[in-house]
Amino acid sequence: MNAHHDRPLRVALLGCGVVGTEVARRLTRDADELARRVGAPLELAGIAVRRAGAERDLPGVPADLFTTDADALVRRGDLDLVVEVMGGIDPAGDLVRAALENGASVVTANKALLAARGAELFEAAAKAERDLSFEAAVAGAIPIVRPLRESLAGDRVHRVLGIVNGTTNYILDQMTTLGQSFDEALAEAQRLGYAEADPTADVEGHDAAAKAALLAGLAFHTNLTLDDVYCEGITKVTAEAVRSATETGSVVKLLAICEQTETDDGVAVSARVHPALVPQSHPLASVRGAYNAVFVESEAAGDLMFYGQGAGGAPTASAVLGDLVAAARNRVGGVWGPGETSHADVELLPVGRALTRYHMDIDVDDRAGVLASIAQEFARFGVSIQTMRQDGRGSDARLVIVTHEAEDASLAATVEVLRGLDVVRDVTSVLRVEGGS
Amino acid sequence: MNAHHDRPLRVALLGCGVVGTEVARRLTRDADELARRVGAPLELAGIAVRRAGAERDLPGVPADLFTTDADALVRRGDLDLVVEVMGGIDPAGDLVRAALENGASVVTANKALLAARGAELFEAAAKAERDLSFEAAVAGAIPIVRPLRESLAGDRVHRVLGIVNGTTNYILDQMTTLGQSFDEALAEAQRLGYAEADPTADVEGHDAAAKAALLAGLAFHTNLTLDDVYCEGITKVTAEAVRSATETGSVVKLLAICEQTETDDGVAVSARVHPALVPQSHPLASVRGAYNAVFVESEAAGDLMFYGQGAGGAPTASAVLGDLVAAARNRVGGVWGPGETSHADVELLPVGRALTRYHMDIDVDDRAGVLASIAQEFARFGVSIQTMRQDGRGSDARLVIVTHEAEDASLAATVEVLRGLDVVRDVTSVLRVEGGS
Repeated sequence: MNAHHDRPLRVALLGCGVVGTEVARRLTRDADELARRVGAPLELAGIAVRRAGAERDLPGVPADLFTTDADALVRRGDLDLVVEVMGGIDPAGDLVRAALENGASVVTANKALLAARGAELFEAAAKAERDLSFEAAVAGAIPIVRPLRESLAGDRVHRVLGIVNGTTNYILDQMTTLGQSFDEALAEAQRLGYAEADPTADVEGHDAAAKAALLAGLAFHTNLTLDDVYCEGITKVTAEAVRSATETGSVVKLLAICEQTETDDGVAVSARVHPALVPQSHPLASVRGAYNAVFVESEAAGDLMFYGQGAGGAPTASAVLGDLVAAARNRVGGVWGPGETSHADVELLPVGRALTRYHMDIDVDDRAGVLASIAQEFARFGVSIQTMRQDGRGSDARLVIVTHEAEDASLAATVEVLRGLDVVRDVTSVLRVEGGS
Repeated sequence: MNAHHDRPLRVALLGCGVVGTEVARRLTRDADELARRVGAPLELAGIAVRRAGAERDLPGVPADLFTTDADALVRRGDLDLVVEVMGGIDPAGDLVRAALENGASVVTANKALLAARGAELFEAAAKAERDLSFEAAVAGAIPIVRPLRESLAGDRVHRVLGIVNGTTNYILDQMTTLGQSFDEALAEAQRLGYAEADPTADVEGHDAAAKAALLAGLAFHTNLTLDDVYCEGITKVTAEAVRSATETGSVVKLLAICEQTETDDGVAVSARVHPALVPQSHPLASVRGAYNAVFVESEAAGDLMFYGQGAGGAPTASAVLGDLVAAARNRVGGVWGPGETSHADVELLPVGRALTRYHMDIDVDDRAGVLASIAQEFARFGVSIQTMRQDGRGSDARLVIVTHEAEDASLAATVEVLRGLDVVRDVTSVLRVEGGS
């Protein structure tokens, strides 16, 4: 595996956007250093692009390497490695599959593709005896795939809490520090280029949900798809809810939560994405701006956190190149790495059965008996109250209630009944509380 | 590499203290799960201990596996994997070497051994075509070896800042939050079992220095020994210096700093361990108590941080078992992993040439002309002052000076000259400032 040999390894790039350009630039600039780390030179053999002739700032990359025929490129049969950074599910999925079947190891940064067709593509990689690596697909530059799959291979992961979307973290951070509304913070994020013109995938939590599916698969040695992940975005988080969180010593974060739970039949896993209150003392609370972090709770290692930039051309290229060097070393040695294990064929736990805590802001009439009738409803659903605070404001009052841990379905049912009570004017905010007691 | 085969892999343990016991317990308890992850069963073939017959709480481990003859154990010739968790340099070093030469891959948690004899042992591993893994030797359970060596293999690391000793972090944390003196905080740490009866290795920075040598080697693809690391402990950090740090928005941390610097002749690396002021806004500032963290600044990935428990039986066992599973997978596949690269034969930069900033507390006479004569000395050594604050206290005054970046030797020379000035009563504290401007 450490043998040095002189035949260059032939690398094709699918896609030459921000990440692809950065990968091509570094492959060219750092050719000597990478050759030493791999044990063989890496040679750019082709770059599939959407439009021919587009201006590209890639000195040292011959123009004749560019092609619009990605399909022919991956089927050439002489490629050792293919880097897929074009994004999307079609045609990326078929191209990755064809690349593997034609003998190349594949590095991808495509979370949407893996969350949709991961099981099938990992199987194709195992059959072809090739690597399919995807460090860049989960939390960008943060090394998390390798730590979960290899460093913790002798441990048991209980829970993964991730801030895995920089756009929403930036928006929530602005709401927290400047008191901005969601709309104000989103507009600011768009102006600065942190959010796209159509921010749906970020603010509705879809991007985080795809990463949650991948994280759960890695942590629990199983396969999840996007459809298995409960998903709630941040569009309904109000400035007032954020203020109320601050008052109770917490911050609001969009979390991707993957858990393994003991059930009567064994263990079940769940994956969910939603805004949550995190205590200010929790390491995730200090993850600011567009940064990402993944917090891992495991049996023997205890709590671990991995922090860094979750997006951007250079950070993503760093993760892609790390995978590329590892896959190239494997090609030099004629081996391939540990594939995705999915030996734990575990039950999927619906979000309703996940254990969590609720923080609720409730507008109520300010009169005798109100607290009693509200407390009664919590008791009826077996939900225990941890703290209750009442701020009188004349004829009405604001109640802030934080519950003890209970099943999400019971908590949600309690909220529904509260909304129907005469004494309740409005339940203005409901946020889950995670990451501490 | 993914082939499943039925012959068990034979594992020997050298040492059965806190970590060894935890490894043996998990190997036994989780045998089925580990066999699935490896692709072959792991079989405990022998445990070398210092004293025979000591009581051990290891259900399922046959008594005849224990031996006091470690040398005979590693030379049996039928071992696939050896776990060295006995600590110390002798006889651990010779045993690791013999294990490799007799065909076993080795997993070690022994930072002192690697900082002393790493180059020789890695060479022995390469020659024997076996793995020598050491994730547990740097920052305990925190996955840092694999991320530095593999995830960042396509990137360039500029700097590593680590809080890699839990004992000193706990002591400094107590001094910061409770205003305790070093002696008070040390006594408390000893009472709670966070510090040993002889705390020298921790409080003088030797433990952190061994880890700094390993981190620098990993980050910069070179070899460093303990002697290459400048080392200054925390015994001289006063309660007043910690208070002064807090006033300027910083906290005092014992940092292991590994840097690559451009020089006239190319690049040079340096490794140093010393107390330093870290701005409260820096992610390292919130690493509290006995936790560890390693902050990595790299060209493409940007800033990354890895956080977790740096010591303890279960966390260390988690890191050992992660390495063991990876090495076992390699044995199943008949391969070995990427060895330590030391291709970058770089110059070692003495601490005097490292760029840093100084924070100084100085007692001076409170009279006209004092500031001018002090400022003149800074100018003479080419050291630029960033901030200077004077608190009058009657006939004397306290000056707090923070410099801009300069070479450590110039800063140290300035301090020496200041100590000799008539107007200077005492330089009460000198601490470097790291991790931001």
